[in-house]
Amino acid sequence: MGNKIKLAISGGAGRMGSAIWNLALADSDFEVAVVLERSGHPLVGSDANQIEKADVLIEFTAPEATIDHLNYALKYQKPMVIGTTGLNEAQIKLLKEASKKIPILFSPNMSIGINVLFSIIPGLAKKLSGWDVEIVEVHRKAKKDAPSGTAKKFAQLISQVSGKEIPTHSLRVGDVAGDHTITFASEGERIEISHRAQSPILFAKGALVLTKKLIKMPPGLYEPVNFL
Amino acid sequence: MGNKIKLAISGGAGRMGSAIWNLALADSDFEVAVVLERSGHPLVGSDANQIEKADVLIEFTAPEATIDHLNYALKYQKPMVIGTTGLNEAQIKLLKEASKKIPILFSPNMSIGINVLFSIIPGLAKKLSGWDVEIVEVHRKAKKDAPSGTAKKFAQLISQVSGKEIPTHSLRVGDVAGDHTITFASEGERIEISHRAQSPILFAKGALVLTKKLIKMPPGLYEPVNFL
Amino acid sequence: MGNKIKLAISGGAGRMGSAIWNLALADSDFEVAVVLERSGHPLVGSDANQIEKADVLIEFTAPEATIDHLNYALKYQKPMVIGTTGLNEAQIKLLKEASKKIPILFSPNMSIGINVLFSIIPGLAKKLSGWDVEIVEVHRKAKKDAPSGTAKKFAQLISQVSGKEIPTHSLRVGDVAGDHTITFASEGERIEISHRAQSPILFAKGALVLTKKLIKMPPGLYEPVNFL
Amino acid sequence: MGNKIKLAISGGAGRMGSAIWNLALADSDFEVAVVLERSGHPLVGSDANQIEKADVLIEFTAPEATIDHLNYALKYQKPMVIGTTGLNEAQIKLLKEASKKIPILFSPNMSIGINVLFSIIPGLAKKLSGWDVEIVEVHRKAKKDAPSGTAKKFAQLISQVSGKEIPTHSLRVGDVAGDHTITFASEGERIEISHRAQSPILFAKGALVLTKKLIKMPPGLYEPVNFL
Repeated sequence: MGNKIKLAISGGAGRMGSAIWNLALADSDFEVAVVLERSGHPLVGSDANQIEKADVLIEFTAPEATIDHLNYALKYQKPMVIGTTGLNEAQIKLLKEASKKIPILFSPNMSIGINVLFSIIPGLAKKLSGWDVEIVEVHRKAKKDAPSGTAKKFAQLISQVSGKEIPTHSLRVGDVAGDHTITFASEGERIEISHRAQSPILFAKGALVLTKKLIKMPPGLYEPVNFL
Repeated sequence: MGNKIKLAISGGAGRMGSAIWNLALADSDFEVAVVLERSGHPLVGSDANQIEKADVLIEFTAPEATIDHLNYALKYQKPMVIGTTGLNEAQIKLLKEASKKIPILFSPNMSIGINVLFSIIPGLAKKLSGWDVEIVEVHRKAKKDAPSGTAKKFAQLISQVSGKEIPTHSLRVGDVAGDHTITFASEGERIEISHRAQSPILFAKGALVLTKKLIKMPPGLYEPVNFL
Repeated sequence: MGNKIKLAISGGAGRMGSAIWNLALADSDFEVAVVLERSGHPLVGSDANQIEKADVLIEFTAPEATIDHLNYALKYQKPMVIGTTGLNEAQIKLLKEASKKIPILFSPNMSIGINVLFSIIPGLAKKLSGWDVEIVEVHRKAKKDAPSGTAKKFAQLISQVSGKEIPTHSLRVGDVAGDHTITFASEGERIEISHRAQSPILFAKGALVLTKKLIKMPPGLYEPVNFL
Repeated sequence: MGNKIKLAISGGAGRMGSAIWNLALADSDFEVAVVLERSGHPLVGSDANQIEKADVLIEFTAPEATIDHLNYALKYQKPMVIGTTGLNEAQIKLLKEASKKIPILFSPNMSIGINVLFSIIPGLAKKLSGWDVEIVEVHRKAKKDAPSGTAKKFAQLISQVSGKEIPTHSLRVGDVAGDHTITFASEGERIEISHRAQSPILFAKGALVLTKKLIKMPPGLYEPVNFL
């Protein structure tokens, strides 16, 4: 029991925060010690000093709340897992500063599968040097931006190896959670690497898997690929 | 034996003509009675009057040769299977005229699979009315035009049902013979209809399957979907 | 307003019943007039006589409750949409009897996509007569039965056309909601027909789409394919 | 010109030998110096002493011819690329002996894509430890053995990492040249790694790519993964 990881979950009433909360309750490696929400929220406390009781802080909220909580993580020397998106350069600079004193994992995509692919694609692209490469991604009709951030990252990783631009195609149909396929083709053969997301729960699950790795690390700014 | 279909194959030294010739030799329903090539070709005869000996003329050549041979088909009242591409409007008008007197099958794509899909897609699009639709096609790097003619035909068939434009994505990689995938998506579910061509032989095979149907037909201008 | 379809939803606290309830609230064609649950349930009423106020009864419950409610549907002459599984032969016989007096839609799979595929597969198999056919289905690791009922239905529909047994392959991995792929292959070409379910919501959505069709029908026992 | 690699091609009239010959003629890095066929073949010479004029011997023949030519490769100290299948244990032992004196590349599958996948799959399986894994392969109807040797190798590589047996499914349809798909699945996400062979030419192409690597190596028995 004493070996359970004590979690502080910020934004516990939000979509991601509550998903992490639910998964953590079902995982015997974790104990949910603290759940934070904005001041006045009926559900849970809002005093960030409570994170003193936790081993690590998981944060999927807004940029301002994230930076606010970063100060408490520094104050109590707690590692921090940050999935918040939309941080500006000044805020990211604050993360970098803080990471000299505490371990911080920062990523807009905590999917284990996607991050494992990020880690193998550069090596694969090198081995398949000279092959043609294109990317197809499929997301829900309502998704406005195209290509997806994940597709752009794949294209960038391959481009850094091949020196060529990688054509990327975006389908926007139905309520698809997110498919990405990278096609490598040469004479007479093709290799296709696909990732299919079925539901947003995978991002919560990824955050917890990565939390277990982060708490063993020295201070530093980490990405999921550092642990996979 | 007397029931074998006697073929006249035009352009017998060409890529398609020789493929048809080879397949016909291996098919007990056919007898290759005549093979035509341009005047002076060492391989085979060039006197188009020979088609009198055949039951049907199969033509995958150039537009001029095709129209020249059309006159012989008319003269000897022989059905004609035409896979020649690039005919201009005047030449197509000649086909239409001729089809009042002889049965003519005219199509730039004799693949059975593609034509079967052409035949079912309008009905499917009607049943899936309201679903989002997009098309992805993959062809060899060297293919200049995009989207493929086949993808355009699919998009047009669906568009006629839904009244919406169908986004089409073209990948040009390796030496892919030709893949087409139509994705229909609604809330929580997707239907994907794919066709994969492995080699050009399928077009020769399709021409022979369709030849067996054409020779039983009255005069008229036919497409493969009329027989599938 | 007067034209809205008044729904009675049975099993409104269950997984399917509540999904239908939520979707119906968001659909301006429907009004949720009655929600039934078993006696004593705090959420909603349990007096099945209430269905008199509705235009149609939607039932995704247990076999006994279904047959019990069937009697009320008969009493008040209301059409009934039944997605309950596990009915025995005697119970199905009761449905058939009742369907002489009221329209009944009965199906274990209300997915629009799957049922549309059920409706086109026999025709497609006929057009692709002589092609080899195999089926691959993918479901969550925990799913015990294999092949899936849907895969068996596809195999049966194709087998009735071709007279051949259709090999079926079952993958059981992760928490996949349900993929089915039918591969047709001939010389040089392949056609693949795939359905991907992303979440169970599609079954609730399908039930509502089909309800709109059922209420216009004369008495009879219907399957989704009758409406697609 | 002096820097071209001089090839001796054994079995030059065979399916693989002639494909290699054709590809080598079109590749400015190679010069076809010697082509061998069995004694009396009208096309080319049969005196294996000719390999003295070449830099490397490429052999896709029968086991007996392969061992016979191995002795000439030893006599003239020439590296040897061997794609011959069906060697028995005694013959493989002879290869191992010879590889102490000359560099030998020996593999039944010279596809670059397949061998690159062989090289990355163990690392990927390690990163995706705990995910469910299954394999699906598709080959021509006429292929008797199942699963394919390539599928078995994939299953073995993954099994060595996970300690679990990997279910493998074999489809036998049409004249498919060879597709392999490895599915990894976890909660909410899936990764699929596919290889599609379009035609046998890819094995000839792979042999030439690997030949360029082999001639720079010291004596030893190599597999393609050693070079990719």
